[in-house]
Amino acid sequence: MAYRNPIPTVDIIIELRNRAESPIILIERQNPPYGWAIPGGFVDYGESVEQAAIREAKEEVSLDVTLQEQFYVYSDPNRDPRKHTLSVVFIATATGNPQAADDAKNLSIFTVDNLPEHLCFDHDKVLQDYRNYRLNGVRPVLQR
Amino acid sequence: MAYRNPIPTVDIIIELRNRAESPIILIERQNPPYGWAIPGGFVDYGESVEQAAIREAKEEVSLDVTLQEQFYVYSDPNRDPRKHTLSVVFIATATGNPQAADDAKNLSIFTVDNLPEHLCFDHDKVLQDYRNYRLNGVRPVLQR
Repeated sequence: MAYRNPIPTVDIIIELRNRAESPIILIERQNPPYGWAIPGGFVDYGESVEQAAIREAKEEVSLDVTLQEQFYVYSDPNRDPRKHTLSVVFIATATGNPQAADDAKNLSIFTVDNLPEHLCFDHDKVLQDYRNYRLNGVRPVLQR
Repeated sequence: MAYRNPIPTVDIIIELRNRAESPIILIERQNPPYGWAIPGGFVDYGESVEQAAIREAKEEVSLDVTLQEQFYVYSDPNRDPRKHTLSVVFIATATGNPQAADDAKNLSIFTVDNLPEHLCFDHDKVLQDYRNYRLNGVRPVLQR
């Protein structure tokens, strides 16, 4: 039996710089768990987390994003109902018109003052952290 | 065949706050690849990266560390000669006398102005980034 480790994923908070208030993109998931989420997916063997973030953004919302920064790593064992995953969350920017594709059934665009709730995974918390960072410059609080 | 992903690890840059210049601890590895490295290890299934960092620090240098921040994620597919790993690097603080144990055969303490080179993995780069952050407040540059 192979030794088990959490599975690494990436999520990408994509700010649309060509629209008023630089809103972000959320996607409706094609596969379980169903619901709305930040675009993202599993990191492939042989690719960096940065490469994975650029690839997943392209696959799910059809945009070439520019990564701005590594935002934070979320790794609570209960964050994903399927199995233990950890997510490296990036902040990225893009212009153009996003189109849902691949694992994304639908997408919608939200300003930072109108972010929805009840997202999949721990994405409510991620978006709260992002909002606090974007509006107040405060980074996520370390969970000890 | 299971789908392959990079394996998540943590590394912990431990600053000894009870010593002049708050030097950091490096360890000599007990297992391949042999050589000196930042303390760290694999993240277990079911533990967060923060829990893994605290556990690995305790196992390898026998100290109870206080995590200060997530520093950066390193995930170049060639960073580890064994297989593709990604590392979430933490900055932590501790007091007391470190003792090498478990996967650490030996340890040594270095001030930030006398950091060694030719470490295992990509730890030369990690320490360069750490030094630049500690001395100049500059975060690692995103690899796009």
